Amino acid sequence: MEPADFRRHAHALADWVADYLSTPERYPVLPRVSPGDVVRALPPMAPERGEPFEAIMADFERVLVPALTHWNHPGFFAYFAITASAPGILAEFLAAALNQQAMLWRTSPAATELEEVSLSWLRQLLGLPQAFEGVIYDTASISTLHALAAAREAAFPGARQHGLAACEASAGVRIYCSDHAHVSIDKAVILLGFGHQAVRRIPGDERFQMRPELLSHAIAEDRAAGIVPLAVVATIGTTSTTSVDPVRAISRLCRHEQLWLHVDAAYAGVAAMLPECGAQFDGWEHADSIVLNPHKWLFTPFDLSVLYSRRMDVVRQAFSLAVEYLETRDGARNLMDTGIQLGRRFRSLKLWMVLRHFGAEGIRSALREHLRLARLFAGWIERDARFELLAPVPFSVVCFSVSPGAVAGDEEAFNERLLERVNASGEVFLSHTRIDGRFALRLAIGHLRTEERHVARAWQLLRQGVDELKLSVREPQPR
Amino acid sequence: MEPADFRRHAHALADWVADYLSTPERYPVLPRVSPGDVVRALPPMAPERGEPFEAIMADFERVLVPALTHWNHPGFFAYFAITASAPGILAEFLAAALNQQAMLWRTSPAATELEEVSLSWLRQLLGLPQAFEGVIYDTASISTLHALAAAREAAFPGARQHGLAACEASAGVRIYCSDHAHVSIDKAVILLGFGHQAVRRIPGDERFQMRPELLSHAIAEDRAAGIVPLAVVATIGTTSTTSVDPVRAISRLCRHEQLWLHVDAAYAGVAAMLPECGAQFDGWEHADSIVLNPHKWLFTPFDLSVLYSRRMDVVRQAFSLAVEYLETRDGARNLMDTGIQLGRRFRSLKLWMVLRHFGAEGIRSALREHLRLARLFAGWIERDARFELLAPVPFSVVCFSVSPGAVAGDEEAFNERLLERVNASGEVFLSHTRIDGRFALRLAIGHLRTEERHVARAWQLLRQGVDELKLSVREPQPR
Repeated sequence: MEPADFRRHAHALADWVADYLSTPERYPVLPRVSPGDVVRALPPMAPERGEPFEAIMADFERVLVPALTHWNHPGFFAYFAITASAPGILAEFLAAALNQQAMLWRTSPAATELEEVSLSWLRQLLGLPQAFEGVIYDTASISTLHALAAAREAAFPGARQHGLAACEASAGVRIYCSDHAHVSIDKAVILLGFGHQAVRRIPGDERFQMRPELLSHAIAEDRAAGIVPLAVVATIGTTSTTSVDPVRAISRLCRHEQLWLHVDAAYAGVAAMLPECGAQFDGWEHADSIVLNPHKWLFTPFDLSVLYSRRMDVVRQAFSLAVEYLETRDGARNLMDTGIQLGRRFRSLKLWMVLRHFGAEGIRSALREHLRLARLFAGWIERDARFELLAPVPFSVVCFSVSPGAVAGDEEAFNERLLERVNASGEVFLSHTRIDGRFALRLAIGHLRTEERHVARAWQLLRQGVDELKLSVREPQPR
Repeated sequence: MEPADFRRHAHALADWVADYLSTPERYPVLPRVSPGDVVRALPPMAPERGEPFEAIMADFERVLVPALTHWNHPGFFAYFAITASAPGILAEFLAAALNQQAMLWRTSPAATELEEVSLSWLRQLLGLPQAFEGVIYDTASISTLHALAAAREAAFPGARQHGLAACEASAGVRIYCSDHAHVSIDKAVILLGFGHQAVRRIPGDERFQMRPELLSHAIAEDRAAGIVPLAVVATIGTTSTTSVDPVRAISRLCRHEQLWLHVDAAYAGVAAMLPECGAQFDGWEHADSIVLNPHKWLFTPFDLSVLYSRRMDVVRQAFSLAVEYLETRDGARNLMDTGIQLGRRFRSLKLWMVLRHFGAEGIRSALREHLRLARLFAGWIERDARFELLAPVPFSVVCFSVSPGAVAGDEEAFNERLLERVNASGEVFLSHTRIDGRFALRLAIGHLRTEERHVARAWQLLRQGVDELKLSVREPQPR
């Protein structure tokens, strides 16, 4: 593409993106397409001759835009709502153009050192001690994989050379987490060769928090059976209910038992910037490793996950391998030595620009607004007898359902139909989960453009949905 | 950021990037900074209050740009030269703004299905049969990890549940590759729990190609010792010399021995689009899995690696896990089930835009030009008695050194000083490797902006360097 053409298309795209972001509600949150629609709308083969960029953009608008799920819509309340903030988007545009591949310091001093700077800034904002070194990976799945690989390396230093079969106790090993912990732990344990049975899920209490006395009991039971306890994954902000495991008690147990403690704070971690959330993070500074995802609740475009560890030397020990064609003599630390991926994108640029654009104050106030909106919505649920809160609301996610008493017939089917109906509006997108066996609707607040009116609209749609489903309701009871 | 401000900054960035790309030689390829310079130039803490975007950009230009290694410079000849082409950069700008997270079809029908479409297009261009299903990961390290995880799953279906220790033959397993294969294989084998000793490197011949008779012998020897052969990784385009293993012979052996064959074509794979390169890819269609990286030689901004496999069901079998909060009923295939990473960026957008912008014809002609330039440079080396080619040139990389006879004193030190001197010019950046124990300079051609004059300039700098190092040279011999 000629430079002049690039300039023209880049300006056209700047306008396209600016229009898109300034009217984030112009499209339905969930697209109205069926599986296969996009495939059928595109040619079965690549073109033999190059096409004008205008033609490509025309197909982008005709075929792809109607098939986007609009994560930028302020009514996106599903899973964890996330934001590609303006400085983050601009940084990604720059990063794509610069095309840094930061495997070695030498192949990008800027990306290598900006990762150090931005992770040091973030660490201080989170109140974590300097002993925590950080590294940027793509996703929490990969961060947690590295944490558990390091735990393996610490426990079985011979495994790197001789393999698990030669080192592992014949009765196997165990990694503990609560029954509300994320599936990425299971995937990591499988990948590492321990087998899925090595994951032991410890029941939570009525607030969905791991019960440390049951953890302690499980460890003792396993040791008695010849199984080697290896690591505990405590979660601050579980995926379904954002419940918080008692990290301080768990950390004491881990110290006593000499187990690696990994804290999964992928979603909620940034809330450690708020003094009023201090209780949720009590004791996390004793973890061996912590994952948190700026692409979740720190307004950074996907993907950017951070692993902090007091023992990053063990991660490096597990993976660094010298090869001649990557040898350098500058004495600098090379990112390729901290993990499985050799190549690294210039992800720190977006984190750095986001931190500077918002400042600590701006981030705190955005997080506080999300927490306020979640409490507000939870309050509406609590005051309407047709609805029921299904879990405490420690952060910005609310799990609820229609009250059993308010439903004639199959409660689960009713809640599912309500969710479908509300999502079909195109104005909001909520997801679901299952809590104590019950189908739960789940409203997650995390997008920067979400205002009180969007949450209120979700509430209105839910109440209308209940009415229109011609439910036989009891009269709401004043509380 | 207010929409009007975003528009203003996006336009300013469009100009910045257009200027940057239209004068790619304005900066030295290798930056003139020392380790720690960037860290020292930035404040030790994040700002408390948000800062204007202009201030952030000013620091970007003041601190970061002088510390970039310019992968966009046409004189970038190190490692594998890569290109963030114009359509790829524009696609990444869009992808950042859209912020798709394609874990489920539902969370991005566009990203999920465009991955299918663009990988089908690419597969056809490569001449691979329809039996190969593709998936996009971030890096070749992750693609190869999944290939070997699938090989493990195929050989030890019980390992997923019960772990390696319960399944593995007591004497261990073996994964074979040539002694020129990439370090990502070692890292994957370590991660999977086999231990580094499970990698057995088969010597190559004088052209650095794996010797199948030695592979056959190694497999027999291992079987006799009770070791379980698991997989072979054949490389088309090794990292040092881009040598090509005899894939057809290896594939016959793998079929006979029932071993998983993974082909690492991370760099060279796209050259399969050229009929004249057919011999290099002879037999690769019999592989169980193949990795190639469009971010290497297909003009796609970093990162985008593709894994093709005839047995993608085995990859899914190894990793898919049902969880309630991610359950959908649309019957569509979800990307999260194909691999370890739950979240997926909208990477297919850049691949699709690159394929359409260049067309098959445009890509072939760019690859042919790179092959021509490499042969041209190799010819210059061959005709100058002061230099020596150290490996055949099957693709676009040339390995060479100063001839031993042309150097007074320590040959290795001389070559190293020559490399340093040439790179210090700021006009070119070559890397090095070691071939048969000898220090080799390595010139890799792969950037779209690299023209004959840049290769000629590298050659001129090399010859000048030799002269200026006050070498006692023999007179060049006519050949």
